[in-house]
Amino acid sequence: MSKNTLENLFAPKSIAIIGASNKKGKIGTVLVNNVTKLGYKGEVYFVNPSYKLLKLKRCYSDLNNIDRHIDVALVAVPAKFVLDVIVASCDKVKNFVVISAGFSETDAEGMKREKDLAQLAKDHNLNILGPNCLGFIAPKLKLNASFAGGMPKAGNIAFVSQSGALAVALMDRAAQEHIGFSQIVSVGNKMQLDESELLEYLAKDKETKVIGMYLEGIKNGQKFIETAKKVSKIKPIVILKAGKTEKAQKAISSHTGALAGSDDIIDVAFEKAGVIRANDLEEFFDLLTLISFVDAPKNEKVAVLTNAGGAGVLTTDAFKGKDIVLADFSSKTKDEMKSVLPQEASVENPVDLLGDAGEDRYQSILDILNKQKVGVIIPVLTPQQQTPVEKIAEAIIKNRKHSQSAMITVFIGGGRIKKSVDDLKKNYIPNFSNPDGAISALNKYYKWSLFKKTKEIICKENINVSRKKQVEEIIAMAKKENRSALFFSEAFEVMKKYAINPVSYVEILPGSEISPIMQYPVVIKVDSDKVLHKSDKQALILNIKDPSALEAAAKKLRANFPTERLVVQPMHDKQVEVILGIKQDSIFGPVIVYGLGGIYTEVFKMVNFLIPPMTAQSIKEQILKSKISFLFSGARGQQAYDIEEFASIINGLMDFAVENKNISEFDINPLFIYNDGREALAVDIKIIL
Amino acid sequence: MSKNTLENLFAPKSIAIIGASNKKGKIGTVLVNNVTKLGYKGEVYFVNPSYKLLKLKRCYSDLNNIDRHIDVALVAVPAKFVLDVIVASCDKVKNFVVISAGFSETDAEGMKREKDLAQLAKDHNLNILGPNCLGFIAPKLKLNASFAGGMPKAGNIAFVSQSGALAVALMDRAAQEHIGFSQIVSVGNKMQLDESELLEYLAKDKETKVIGMYLEGIKNGQKFIETAKKVSKIKPIVILKAGKTEKAQKAISSHTGALAGSDDIIDVAFEKAGVIRANDLEEFFDLLTLISFVDAPKNEKVAVLTNAGGAGVLTTDAFKGKDIVLADFSSKTKDEMKSVLPQEASVENPVDLLGDAGEDRYQSILDILNKQKVGVIIPVLTPQQQTPVEKIAEAIIKNRKHSQSAMITVFIGGGRIKKSVDDLKKNYIPNFSNPDGAISALNKYYKWSLFKKTKEIICKENINVSRKKQVEEIIAMAKKENRSALFFSEAFEVMKKYAINPVSYVEILPGSEISPIMQYPVVIKVDSDKVLHKSDKQALILNIKDPSALEAAAKKLRANFPTERLVVQPMHDKQVEVILGIKQDSIFGPVIVYGLGGIYTEVFKMVNFLIPPMTAQSIKEQILKSKISFLFSGARGQQAYDIEEFASIINGLMDFAVENKNISEFDINPLFIYNDGREALAVDIKIIL
Repeated sequence: MSKNTLENLFAPKSIAIIGASNKKGKIGTVLVNNVTKLGYKGEVYFVNPSYKLLKLKRCYSDLNNIDRHIDVALVAVPAKFVLDVIVASCDKVKNFVVISAGFSETDAEGMKREKDLAQLAKDHNLNILGPNCLGFIAPKLKLNASFAGGMPKAGNIAFVSQSGALAVALMDRAAQEHIGFSQIVSVGNKMQLDESELLEYLAKDKETKVIGMYLEGIKNGQKFIETAKKVSKIKPIVILKAGKTEKAQKAISSHTGALAGSDDIIDVAFEKAGVIRANDLEEFFDLLTLISFVDAPKNEKVAVLTNAGGAGVLTTDAFKGKDIVLADFSSKTKDEMKSVLPQEASVENPVDLLGDAGEDRYQSILDILNKQKVGVIIPVLTPQQQTPVEKIAEAIIKNRKHSQSAMITVFIGGGRIKKSVDDLKKNYIPNFSNPDGAISALNKYYKWSLFKKTKEIICKENINVSRKKQVEEIIAMAKKENRSALFFSEAFEVMKKYAINPVSYVEILPGSEISPIMQYPVVIKVDSDKVLHKSDKQALILNIKDPSALEAAAKKLRANFPTERLVVQPMHDKQVEVILGIKQDSIFGPVIVYGLGGIYTEVFKMVNFLIPPMTAQSIKEQILKSKISFLFSGARGQQAYDIEEFASIINGLMDFAVENKNISEFDINPLFIYNDGREALAVDIKIIL
Repeated sequence: MSKNTLENLFAPKSIAIIGASNKKGKIGTVLVNNVTKLGYKGEVYFVNPSYKLLKLKRCYSDLNNIDRHIDVALVAVPAKFVLDVIVASCDKVKNFVVISAGFSETDAEGMKREKDLAQLAKDHNLNILGPNCLGFIAPKLKLNASFAGGMPKAGNIAFVSQSGALAVALMDRAAQEHIGFSQIVSVGNKMQLDESELLEYLAKDKETKVIGMYLEGIKNGQKFIETAKKVSKIKPIVILKAGKTEKAQKAISSHTGALAGSDDIIDVAFEKAGVIRANDLEEFFDLLTLISFVDAPKNEKVAVLTNAGGAGVLTTDAFKGKDIVLADFSSKTKDEMKSVLPQEASVENPVDLLGDAGEDRYQSILDILNKQKVGVIIPVLTPQQQTPVEKIAEAIIKNRKHSQSAMITVFIGGGRIKKSVDDLKKNYIPNFSNPDGAISALNKYYKWSLFKKTKEIICKENINVSRKKQVEEIIAMAKKENRSALFFSEAFEVMKKYAINPVSYVEILPGSEISPIMQYPVVIKVDSDKVLHKSDKQALILNIKDPSALEAAAKKLRANFPTERLVVQPMHDKQVEVILGIKQDSIFGPVIVYGLGGIYTEVFKMVNFLIPPMTAQSIKEQILKSKISFLFSGARGQQAYDIEEFASIINGLMDFAVENKNISEFDINPLFIYNDGREALAVDIKIIL
């Protein structure tokens, strides 16, 4: 069976509407109107046993009665009939849009129904969009195969939404702002066609310049990262990911049954995949508009010209902490500008054209800036009494046509700038009323362009089968003994296999003698899955200086924990404490967590995340960009800690995480690291099964 | 001489325009048109020796020829004539608006001119707005005494701007959004009438509900804090403060000659004064609109109702990290909601009315929410196919009239919501297209309402005259010896006066013997204003364990620094290192800086600021809200450090800062603090003169 491609679904030559109707308020009625009345040129068939004729057109009782080929069937019948309808039609049609609600977003019965539907798709090589979705719109074909109203302008934004209502709101706003779409897809419950499938399809779609997504959940984290990373090398992906807060996560699970992940991990995943994350709805819209209209800045340099000093200052402020910067002009350029501006004008960047600037001053400075090869030119304007707003807009529009730089405007005002802003947008120059919004969006676009240029390094999970088996045997043993955690001796053995260096130890089994210890001071502790928080339960005695103190300490612990084994370890002095761990994320699988240890962990929120698999090189790069990079840079003249050693420990941990996905919790807390040549030491290791 | 109040300036019954003109492009012409053609009912006089008649009205060659009383003179003559004009008129008029540019924003000559003008104002008890300003507008009087165009709607926002062009842009936008002003004032160079003077005046102005300011600099920091703090207890002050970045600061100094301060200190000053800081232009506008239309939330609880799940999730996200929260509904309330909603609707907060919700569902839920005594109700809407947008807006408008809760809307869309959003605004319901913007503005407004309720504690600088004199004598001695820093022995003596405990020491003068030291280990260091960075210059030897090692160390230092005195101090073990310092801020004077010491200072940017004077109580409160509060809370089960002790050290330091404003630099680095009962120790103290 050859793969049924998504082109068949999203660019159909013929459509059947199952559940077509003419009753007011019925979804089937809206579908009929949307598909037939907005200019779609393909064949349309109505299916509904209740009608013979609908809108003066034949209505079929059964799809199989239609004797022509059909690309797509829109299904708008009650949920309980959906499976039957598709079973009956799937020899004839291979692409379905299931608009009907009543699946996994509801109850156990709905979940069962969705599972059966997924199986059906698999068995019959079907593409099914939804269920519980709005449908899709292909403006180029004048096809509105959805129950949202209207026909957006054709353009280059593909918008994929997990919320139908937000898609509708965005379309309404886009129309007002002269923004066009290549495709609008409501994914609903994402049973089969999820964000990854759509990314894959839209990457190849020639009409699409930018892919925008509103997502509440991500279905398969690893598949998503892999796909998005590939697609981000071709075109930008902008995602508004909802569900940042616990409350919001609650709202989601009652909304579309999506599973929200920890927001910090989403950030890391998006960064890894080159995805541009929009922080809020406004920025999402800003980014889509910007990317739709303008090509990515060719370099980080930005030139600003303004007729208002204050607006220039605000624009300058907006560059704080950004990768794009205000260009420095050469003295030659400044002289050139001086020659066309009044003496009181400023030829620093932002160039201050003064309040009485007309279109000539804008034009002259734009001419000079065009030769500067800056990445972006931003004309800023406030509508002062004497400002010829429309003429200035015209000059900017004319300039756009022969400038190599990206161009956006910051016109600030209301009625007096309205028409000009409209003209600018019609000519693909986005206007931002807020300088901070403009610079932030530009910065994200520029950073994507850097990602696009990085060399792709393919990185797959790398499983050492024999090592994996050895660890599984150790774990199986512990499980057989009904333990929920490994003994330190076992953890020691496991860590050694991953090139992580645990502190040495002497084990004292219940009832047996203490072997002579060579090196003091030592620490003694209870080693048991029942005593995981040792300091809370007084199962740990530190800084024991001689054999008799050790004897006393052991006696004390034995009195309280008679059936547990004890472990004696040398007390090492600490310079810097680090913590390492594995978080089992519901979306992305095992995630490596690392950061400063001790009180600083929680206080400074100094935790970093890494999502496997990663190459050794990129692990190192990420550590050097992390919140603890200062340890490895020799900050404030202190000797740097060993980045190679630390990266190799993280690497080992990543191998461990990938090979042992059934471990429920893992912690090294603390890991001591040294900057004086001593080897890093895993002081305590917790492996919970 | 009785004080000439600002009412005379800003609500004049008569105005003279000095430099009145009818030539196109002249500011004097714009002023004539603005004052006479927009409805102002007061007396207007033209002054210009070049005309006998202007606009069919007598034009006076000299203001003194006018035989009536004149409240205000607008001055629009070239800068070089301004002083003469005012000298000639100031017996007759006491209030001037100097529109002319060419003062401190230009060059040395301009600065001299402004200084002379200020002296004139003082000598003759004048109010002078500007120079280099746009003028002012009083919409209630239909008076546009500026060269900005138009007459804004009368309303309750007073807007004070250091940028005339931004004022113009904001007025243009406000007109479009049905927002009105009580007063618009362009302050220009703020020679005499600065932000503090205007705050004082506007606090008393009955028409003004909220004061919005665009500021590039603050003229007198201490006066500003004192005034703003008082005014914030009466009405909210919203400030957009530009100049966050170094580049922007450069732009400012070439713009209006203002002096920008460190942005973090501005934050602290605004917080201290209860000022609402807008992060960018968009938020500034959002806040002014919100406060103009709506009273502050009575409590922190917010109820959200929506016809779109996705929009509800985004709104929920926006509450992350905020003081306002989504209200929890009682099961009784939920039952009541269930009784009026379809079964699939959600009665959690946000209440999901479902996509097909009409005005009846909004109305029913609003009726229920009105009884909940929540601080804020937010109806959210997206224009879905079947959504009766205008009817829903009507229901919301009707509800506003009898609801005790503050009300804002989040309608998301374009053309389909345009008319309704307009209707909402006309009825004082602000709409936010971005949920994050809405919640952020509300949160700031709510926090202001908490500040308003706090009890005012008057706090004045408290100078201990005899102590101040003693310290001055020590400093005078050092200066007499041509030293730029105090010796440790002197710093020790000074610190003791402020109840700060320095580490003990033994001094070794050049050439003399080492007195016997009782307690080892010790540290030896060079004590000289020429060797301030001791570790860089190898002027410090640590961890000396016995007398012979000390002898050797002293010998080594003496070889390198033969003419300097040495200091021997006990080596104390460290638990937590803190740094303390004084920054001489150009706006606010001495500012206390404190934070974690060692490598963490710079790495974690853990520095906090306090602006004197402060009460002991509020010092303590601020430390407990600071980035190092974790030290005093016993985080992660460790013994808490002593907040009383630390607060009293900061208190001592504040006294020191206030009594010794001529000190150029001051550092205690490190201060050791202990959580085991030991007293905190100032280990190294740098007092640079």
